Amino acid sequence: MTAYQIFTSEQAMRFADEHSELFGEHSKLSATEFGDGNLNLVFRVVNDKGTSLIVKQALPYARCVGESWPLSTDRARIEAEVLKLHARFCPEHTVEVLHFDRALSAILMEDLKQYDILRTALIKGKQFAHLAPQLANYLANTLFYTSDFVLTGPAKKAAVAQFTNPDLCLITEDLFFTDPYCNHERNTIHSLILPSARALWYDTDLQAEVAMLKADFLSKPQALLHGDLHSGSIFINNENCKVIDAEFGFYGPIGFDVGVLIGNLLINYVASPGVFKTPEEQSQQQHYLLTQIHTLWQHFADTFSQLQQTATQDPTLQNSRYQQRFLQQVFTDAIGYAGCELIRRTVGLAHVADLERISDAKQRAVCEIHALTLGRVLILERAQLDSITALLDKVQRTVAAIAAP
Amino acid sequence: MTAYQIFTSEQAMRFADEHSELFGEHSKLSATEFGDGNLNLVFRVVNDKGTSLIVKQALPYARCVGESWPLSTDRARIEAEVLKLHARFCPEHTVEVLHFDRALSAILMEDLKQYDILRTALIKGKQFAHLAPQLANYLANTLFYTSDFVLTGPAKKAAVAQFTNPDLCLITEDLFFTDPYCNHERNTIHSLILPSARALWYDTDLQAEVAMLKADFLSKPQALLHGDLHSGSIFINNENCKVIDAEFGFYGPIGFDVGVLIGNLLINYVASPGVFKTPEEQSQQQHYLLTQIHTLWQHFADTFSQLQQTATQDPTLQNSRYQQRFLQQVFTDAIGYAGCELIRRTVGLAHVADLERISDAKQRAVCEIHALTLGRVLILERAQLDSITALLDKVQRTVAAIAAP
Repeated sequence: MTAYQIFTSEQAMRFADEHSELFGEHSKLSATEFGDGNLNLVFRVVNDKGTSLIVKQALPYARCVGESWPLSTDRARIEAEVLKLHARFCPEHTVEVLHFDRALSAILMEDLKQYDILRTALIKGKQFAHLAPQLANYLANTLFYTSDFVLTGPAKKAAVAQFTNPDLCLITEDLFFTDPYCNHERNTIHSLILPSARALWYDTDLQAEVAMLKADFLSKPQALLHGDLHSGSIFINNENCKVIDAEFGFYGPIGFDVGVLIGNLLINYVASPGVFKTPEEQSQQQHYLLTQIHTLWQHFADTFSQLQQTATQDPTLQNSRYQQRFLQQVFTDAIGYAGCELIRRTVGLAHVADLERISDAKQRAVCEIHALTLGRVLILERAQLDSITALLDKVQRTVAAIAAP
Repeated sequence: MTAYQIFTSEQAMRFADEHSELFGEHSKLSATEFGDGNLNLVFRVVNDKGTSLIVKQALPYARCVGESWPLSTDRARIEAEVLKLHARFCPEHTVEVLHFDRALSAILMEDLKQYDILRTALIKGKQFAHLAPQLANYLANTLFYTSDFVLTGPAKKAAVAQFTNPDLCLITEDLFFTDPYCNHERNTIHSLILPSARALWYDTDLQAEVAMLKADFLSKPQALLHGDLHSGSIFINNENCKVIDAEFGFYGPIGFDVGVLIGNLLINYVASPGVFKTPEEQSQQQHYLLTQIHTLWQHFADTFSQLQQTATQDPTLQNSRYQQRFLQQVFTDAIGYAGCELIRRTVGLAHVADLERISDAKQRAVCEIHALTLGRVLILERAQLDSITALLDKVQRTVAAIAAP
């Protein structure tokens, strides 16, 4: 076994060549590193015919959160194993892992160069009808087949142990659930919304609900989550979407994956007035997003419910009333996590381009306040929002009701 | 390291002598095996001055459930480590482990020969005012200090992995949650109550609630549980009680430990008319049990709440509204698990002496039907029983309302 060493382009190329049949004997290879370099190296290895693969290597240090933060390279193993397991249950929408080397913390995987990052596509106003049904399919299959509905108690416990991911979970525990609700130095808050951000620090009602959601994140290992399903972890083109970047994977509450994705679509929703020029474009985008969220939940719930009814192994969990209530609770949880995502992407450490690229500071502040207000309402009222139409209605009313500053 | 071998009395004696300072150089030792021999060997090693210790060794096979059932001797490690950790947080009420040998799966521990088994004491009508406050103290401290309130995310995840206990959890998953609600060959059902037992197999409302409780048992690792806190796992005398037999320990829902204990007190409650001769004795015993349950919950809740307020480390979980709701949910869960314990001890595989020792079959059937009826009501109505007085009121009314057959 090779000892860990940080790849040069040359080494990445050799790694790709060695562990795939793709390039052939007489290929001339080249490699370019294009990761952000804080957490991982990402190389595209390409031959003279344009065939390419990706080599992703976890770095042994982490400047990921703007400061030194201990981060095990075991996250590369987690990522590779989550992707492989998810691909077993939904190969269409999971990036393909061709090889993983534990000592090198390096993954060889398919190149999605024919795809766009979903966040970029959303910001450009590119609309795809297959977005929601495909991601619903991914979520329902990967989450159902790794859950207590299917696994025996012992198999589930072994899986929980296999996917124990303390370092990356800690990032979420802190950045997602703690920092935005206090005056933390890691937060980035644009000055125009400081009063609204500050209000979160004293909102004990909201904090009580966030505590419940955090407690579930800590202690509700329902299924093997992707763990970071924002619109930068999804690639899309005219036919397909594929999920990448599963290094935050762990056993957690099913609503977390669903909710983070919905939250990201809602971030684009509140950002639309700053992103798109004309009212027509804005309203068309917002309509598109609401339709996608509707389809996402409906298709997810239908698929998951179908799987519950036909593929549940545990006899106790075959009870249909229990199954319906389980799914309802997933919905409630998802709304809460969507709300948290809206808030933490606005006032926490990790901001997103949907909001950040709005160059007019006042316009951006309006959108950010919409994000905070909507996030808060979703967290507080999630238990009352008992259907997807109730949720979407609440989204529209909440955003419409916020007075322009 | 010695290889595993089943102890003879001689070897148990030597093990005890080697790993303690208790006996002294010129002691003459003797050892007697007095375990039930199905799961474990239990030796009392005693010297000529009457000083004694217990050697408990896990057997590599298990006839525990009436048939061959694979059962890892790793349970001895779990037992030793749970007892040592619980003793760190509540030494007064946890049996002291002096030595554990992993290869031999053998534990050397203090001898509680000055104590009675709680179940035996309850059946004899022995009443101890310190029962409830001491066990409340044990529960509150062991459960709080192993929970998310205290442990960091990474420390908690390491603890969950350390106490992963698939074999023993599977026994509970099956015997506690599944078997009693279907016609399973492992069940033992006295013929006079067959119609009532059979009703459980078709009670889909009840089964939906049991599914929720099982799902939480599978996926709610709130704290390091004892995992089997029935009245045979507790020793008591005039001054003190001590908890033993932690081989079912794992990270699970806090309400499980609390509920199993309450369930066992309630089993004695419904058994009282069969156990005690005069109506005075019966009513005195039942009054004692209700008082103890009241004190148990009240003292547990007060202590746990005090710990939440003063010793919570996670800033997000310091929110007082969240803490109150957490405790309320523990109560709801506990009532549900108490109900399951009443049912599974009546129609499942593992019966208890409180009911089994009632020699008049008709009288026993009456008590058993009370157990089933009460168990069912507690499971179904647990969310509405929002205080300990509401619970105890419900217990009295439910049992009083059952018509004599």
